[in-house]
Amino acid sequence: MRVGELSRRSGVSVASIKYYLREGLLPPGERTGPNQAAYDDGHVRRLRMVRALIDVGGLSVAATRGVLAAVDDPEVPLHEALGRAQATTTPRHAEDADPDDEARAGAEQALADLVADRGWAVSPANPAWSTAVGVIATYTRLGDDDLARQLGLYAEAMEGVARREVAAVVERGDRARTVEGAVVGTVLGDTLLAALRRLAQEHCSVQLLGGRAGADTGD
Amino acid sequence: MRVGELSRRSGVSVASIKYYLREGLLPPGERTGPNQAAYDDGHVRRLRMVRALIDVGGLSVAATRGVLAAVDDPEVPLHEALGRAQATTTPRHAEDADPDDEARAGAEQALADLVADRGWAVSPANPAWSTAVGVIATYTRLGDDDLARQLGLYAEAMEGVARREVAAVVERGDRARTVEGAVVGTVLGDTLLAALRRLAQEHCSVQLLGGRAGADTGD
Repeated sequence: MRVGELSRRSGVSVASIKYYLREGLLPPGERTGPNQAAYDDGHVRRLRMVRALIDVGGLSVAATRGVLAAVDDPEVPLHEALGRAQATTTPRHAEDADPDDEARAGAEQALADLVADRGWAVSPANPAWSTAVGVIATYTRLGDDDLARQLGLYAEAMEGVARREVAAVVERGDRARTVEGAVVGTVLGDTLLAALRRLAQEHCSVQLLGGRAGADTGD
Repeated sequence: MRVGELSRRSGVSVASIKYYLREGLLPPGERTGPNQAAYDDGHVRRLRMVRALIDVGGLSVAATRGVLAAVDDPEVPLHEALGRAQATTTPRHAEDADPDDEARAGAEQALADLVADRGWAVSPANPAWSTAVGVIATYTRLGDDDLARQLGLYAEAMEGVARREVAAVVERGDRARTVEGAVVGTVLGDTLLAALRRLAQEHCSVQLLGGRAGADTGD
């Protein structure tokens, strides 16, 4: 198909398609003339994924490029591709600027204890490790001990979610679709979990306080 | 205390403190001379919270100002302050650009069904509602049906988390500390849950694929 039809079928403007081609987010079509190229269903699917990652997942163009590189390289073993895709989509802003204080050391220990308690086979090289440590250390510096009591609950909830998610993408069988599913699911899942958590908080706040905690915030 | 000591005690540079004062994120100190002001423990606590929201939660200066306004206004009833704080920290990038298509209608229905099934007292005016709908619609457009099967699991996990979180902040008793706890917990909790989810995914991926999904991604 020509770029005009690619635009109609994907819902992405021709200008954006050209931008994604220049930025390497979309592989070039097959040249059919000096100023013409042909695109296929793979391009439609890739464009929808790019828009999902950027518009809904909030990823930058650079992060999206990194994610797609892991999806596309068939030489990379599946478990490693999943790890790379995951690493690229891990929030980094929580990594700790001041890694040598007591709060940081305590947070490292709290996370190590949690992982040992749950019997998780995970490596401190996973970038999510430093992100988690950064958050726990920040709570400690704020003098907030609610988190220490909820850490196990959070971990248990995420283990239940992750078990089903990983099984679902592995069951897809096809390597490209597994990695795509992991990428999209990880990124969109963050946003969906954040949204559902706020709805659940509204419900629990109504139950506990008798008001409509989130009902009047939309205007 | 003078601004130098405020800087030492909070770990925030004098330049940043002056910036936060200009931006209205930190209330002014008490004037003690033409170029001098005195700050107190409240300023130390507020600075730590500002840094947590910006550095760890990834909020913008404008979003942080909105959150603090809800914390600070004692006229606002508690349940409404919680709702406002929550609304300000809801990811909006997932709101749907194309609200009239079939995917969007299906997503609205899926969320309404989910909320009814769980008996949640929540309002579609909660901005988290449109965010959730946007994510579900995006999955549908990608032709991905994994999510439909996992939506109930996600909601159940978040309800368990939210019940404990709301109870913990309400138990604080003091209004300012309750709202502060809700704000910090909501924002930092998103990042912590995202990090723990990735660690749990690594663990489940190791179990299912026998590799070390996230182990070699740190370099």
